[in-house]
Amino acid sequence: MPKRGDRGGAKTRAHIADVATGLFVQRGFEDVTIAEIAAAAGVSKVTVFSHFDRKEDLALDRLPDAVGIARAAVRERADDVSAVDAIRRTAVALAEQRHPLSGLSDDGDPLARTVMESPALIARLRVFEHEIEAELADELESDARFSGDSALVAALVVAVYRTVTAESVRRRLAGDELADVAAAHLRRLDFGFGVLSAGLSS
Amino acid sequence: MPKRGDRGGAKTRAHIADVATGLFVQRGFEDVTIAEIAAAAGVSKVTVFSHFDRKEDLALDRLPDAVGIARAAVRERADDVSAVDAIRRTAVALAEQRHPLSGLSDDGDPLARTVMESPALIARLRVFEHEIEAELADELESDARFSGDSALVAALVVAVYRTVTAESVRRRLAGDELADVAAAHLRRLDFGFGVLSAGLSS
Repeated sequence: MPKRGDRGGAKTRAHIADVATGLFVQRGFEDVTIAEIAAAAGVSKVTVFSHFDRKEDLALDRLPDAVGIARAAVRERADDVSAVDAIRRTAVALAEQRHPLSGLSDDGDPLARTVMESPALIARLRVFEHEIEAELADELESDARFSGDSALVAALVVAVYRTVTAESVRRRLAGDELADVAAAHLRRLDFGFGVLSAGLSS
Repeated sequence: MPKRGDRGGAKTRAHIADVATGLFVQRGFEDVTIAEIAAAAGVSKVTVFSHFDRKEDLALDRLPDAVGIARAAVRERADDVSAVDAIRRTAVALAEQRHPLSGLSDDGDPLARTVMESPALIARLRVFEHEIEAELADELESDARFSGDSALVAALVVAVYRTVTAESVRRRLAGDELADVAAAHLRRLDFGFGVLSAGLSS
């Protein structure tokens, strides 16, 4: 949903992000202006900024989805599943679906290269990671079935997820076979979340 | 040591950072220019940029110390101490010394407020955290006594340290008593590193 009044809604937002991503991949993030994105998408600059606070967010438009996914994993878990195990299962499911947020989707590759080459996008990615961590901590904090240090657990969970995903993106960009990368990805999720589960229940 | 040729060395670097920090605390990070910092420090703009790549680094000049501290903790540990336990002990020692990097030093407070109010400084802080994580992963990777997933372990260790420190900074800025904040800080380090130690040895 757009943040400041509806100027076409979710479809327009996705269209603008798609057009922007195409331009970024083609010419690099820094060299594309908002005016060019607006013209190519057939909208005004005002419309672009009604959907995105920053130019960086046009390239990272799928990251906010991670918040909803993480919150839903915790909220919708069965009573006999811990919050950490619920997120672990979701992380495995995303990898198996080759979801863009797993770093294992084919169509995410050109954009990943653009992000890795732009200090501005990397900086924004780091801020996003912390936002996701804060949202997850908030979800844990308000969860009646969770007891413990919500900020610390959220930080540990995000650390595992982002470390595994970043390495998968790196290996895909280096040309490694998807099947190999996905297998290593699942092994590392298993190891990382295993450390947290065992450590938290000890 | 300055990065690009010596223009006065470590003393000049520290002097410039001190002057810059004073101006940032007084007037906010965004409103101070490099030219003003150079003039107030009695050096040229070229000298400022010979010591600091970015304006942000003038405010965060003590963060790179964390790399050396983390690497030394791992490298200089006794044979019967795991890498994680060595960093845990160092984290406790920094807290007990009220080291600036623990978030428990009194003189770090005004600067912490400036950082928290500047999106540019927060973004740079996030990038630094990842640099520290990468350096620690590198140290673990090259350590003959460490076996395991160095990137994941580094990410988990940094997640614990930074979560605990950030909350201590937040509480100090909110006016909480140092003794209370320090006690909670030590309890959380104990809990977080305890989870990692137990999880990694299980």
